[in-house]
Amino acid sequence: MKYQNDLILRAAKGEITERVPVWVMRQAGRILPEYRAIRASISGFKELVETPELASEVTIQPVDILGVDAAIIFSDILVIPEAMGCIYEMEEKVGPRFPNPIRTESDINKLVIPDPEDKLKYVLDAVRLTVKNLHGRVPVIGFAGAPFTILAYMIEGKGSKTFSETKKFLYTEPVLAHKILEKITLTTISYLKAKVDAGAAMLQLFDSWAGILSPSQYTEFAMPYISRICDSASVPITVFSKGAFFALEEINQTSCNTIGLDWTLDPKKVREIIGFDKTLQGNLDPCLLYSSDKKIVTETISMLKSFGGNKHIANLGHGVYPDTSPEKVKLFIDTIKNYRF
Amino acid sequence: MKYQNDLILRAAKGEITERVPVWVMRQAGRILPEYRAIRASISGFKELVETPELASEVTIQPVDILGVDAAIIFSDILVIPEAMGCIYEMEEKVGPRFPNPIRTESDINKLVIPDPEDKLKYVLDAVRLTVKNLHGRVPVIGFAGAPFTILAYMIEGKGSKTFSETKKFLYTEPVLAHKILEKITLTTISYLKAKVDAGAAMLQLFDSWAGILSPSQYTEFAMPYISRICDSASVPITVFSKGAFFALEEINQTSCNTIGLDWTLDPKKVREIIGFDKTLQGNLDPCLLYSSDKKIVTETISMLKSFGGNKHIANLGHGVYPDTSPEKVKLFIDTIKNYRF
Repeated sequence: MKYQNDLILRAAKGEITERVPVWVMRQAGRILPEYRAIRASISGFKELVETPELASEVTIQPVDILGVDAAIIFSDILVIPEAMGCIYEMEEKVGPRFPNPIRTESDINKLVIPDPEDKLKYVLDAVRLTVKNLHGRVPVIGFAGAPFTILAYMIEGKGSKTFSETKKFLYTEPVLAHKILEKITLTTISYLKAKVDAGAAMLQLFDSWAGILSPSQYTEFAMPYISRICDSASVPITVFSKGAFFALEEINQTSCNTIGLDWTLDPKKVREIIGFDKTLQGNLDPCLLYSSDKKIVTETISMLKSFGGNKHIANLGHGVYPDTSPEKVKLFIDTIKNYRF
Repeated sequence: MKYQNDLILRAAKGEITERVPVWVMRQAGRILPEYRAIRASISGFKELVETPELASEVTIQPVDILGVDAAIIFSDILVIPEAMGCIYEMEEKVGPRFPNPIRTESDINKLVIPDPEDKLKYVLDAVRLTVKNLHGRVPVIGFAGAPFTILAYMIEGKGSKTFSETKKFLYTEPVLAHKILEKITLTTISYLKAKVDAGAAMLQLFDSWAGILSPSQYTEFAMPYISRICDSASVPITVFSKGAFFALEEINQTSCNTIGLDWTLDPKKVREIIGFDKTLQGNLDPCLLYSSDKKIVTETISMLKSFGGNKHIANLGHGVYPDTSPEKVKLFIDTIKNYRF
């Protein structure tokens, strides 16, 4: 497929681009009044995720309103456990909750590896609709949770500061943990493949809870599965392991194209560690978008410079916080789009 | 003062010790049935903190029961904001809550720098009583929150995953932030001095939320205040900035004696960064204490080896989780006490 704007694809492939491309994690969501209007008209978050027309509409909103260089399908990483048989609920202001978290081997045996065109058709329809309605303006990013993060929700049953139930499970039941991770990985591979078939031109893996693992647990329980998913990808893929500063060298050894950095990492130091093979994505502190316009411009340019201009996809170092003003997000985006090295 | 066991003091001063000393963050607390018995007999957490006889009793429990090489006063870092006029409540299973978080300059102007012998006498009495009742068996550690972490609670009003209110405050009201930090720092310095006068032989600063800061915010809002507190200490002081892997070089430049490491850090890599000047403390993953005895012994010895045997105070990489079996904690401690390099 030809895109009117393929900057982000070229940056992901390591090509030199005329400017740094930009998108924003959680760009489709609560920061936009246009999103909140749609959200208010329906029963809840899951209805939005599961209705392709609406999911596609909010996916395209930031392309129109904010001018980002890519659309990312509005969805949730927890559609995967649900399609495997582990249902989640989204509690307003609390977050996800699994009424029946995984506890025993029998729970694990019951998990299925679904056909994505069956159990996850609503996501694929959203991708197809988005691609159709974008008419090639920008590429569409498909995403999934990294297997460890999905496992963490399935075991813990909810968000947690320590994920101590999950870590206990890894230390005491490593064989069972690998058994679940295997099933999640197979599901994720076929899910992402189906997303690409539906028209996604890029992929991203979110390992949101990687940072709570010890380095040796990350090596054992997170890395091998991420690596297999990267190997299976037929389009550029980004790995964003939040907080896993200790794993940069390992992530660099996968076949991923791009490594996402959170705001605690210094891009120059990261380059010293991993060299210049991969593209980097990130990494402005999302809280900076609460500051004055002047500070946002200064810090955004300073961030651009610290990445050096090539092999860089600009983004925040974490999803944009819901109470951020869309004008501030647009200023961040425009500053990047107007900057030339 | 002469101690029957002064291993930890000697290790903190960088002296070669016959074995690695050990204590456990949160050793006085819910892991011990003896603690829970006392806790059940009173109205709540704060009553325990504010009653010197009881605070002292639970402080000494782990010395008797677990055989640790130091006692740490049972208390809370939030006694400082409370003494300054910002009262907290401890909600069961939720955590601390400040009914009146700091919002305006007028709130800041109302904050006092208290005389510790007045507003914090209950902590100092607990120190005095503990020192008396320990009869020199082991040294007593006094602690405080690092100023940024205390500020975070005062602004946010409660625990948070992102502390985005606090970070917003730092980005938008830096002058006011420094004004509060100055007051917290002066209070902390006189508080720790009073603790030492009362008999504490070592000190520790907990910067529990350091890891949510961007490196430049850490440099501006956390480091200078930590550094001043270290300079003011007349006994060995430890800095434990959880998650602040990016700040090791800066912490190494303070006058602290010991740097606490969380479980995500590799001691060998840390030594490559900071050299061999300081003592290191840590850093077994607290979740490892959920595993089999065999795994605990293997991993504890592996941890000891990774620190190399000298200038090391063994500990977990975070406070022990409340549902950990005391037998497992004792196994961790005994493994360290029995190991010789």
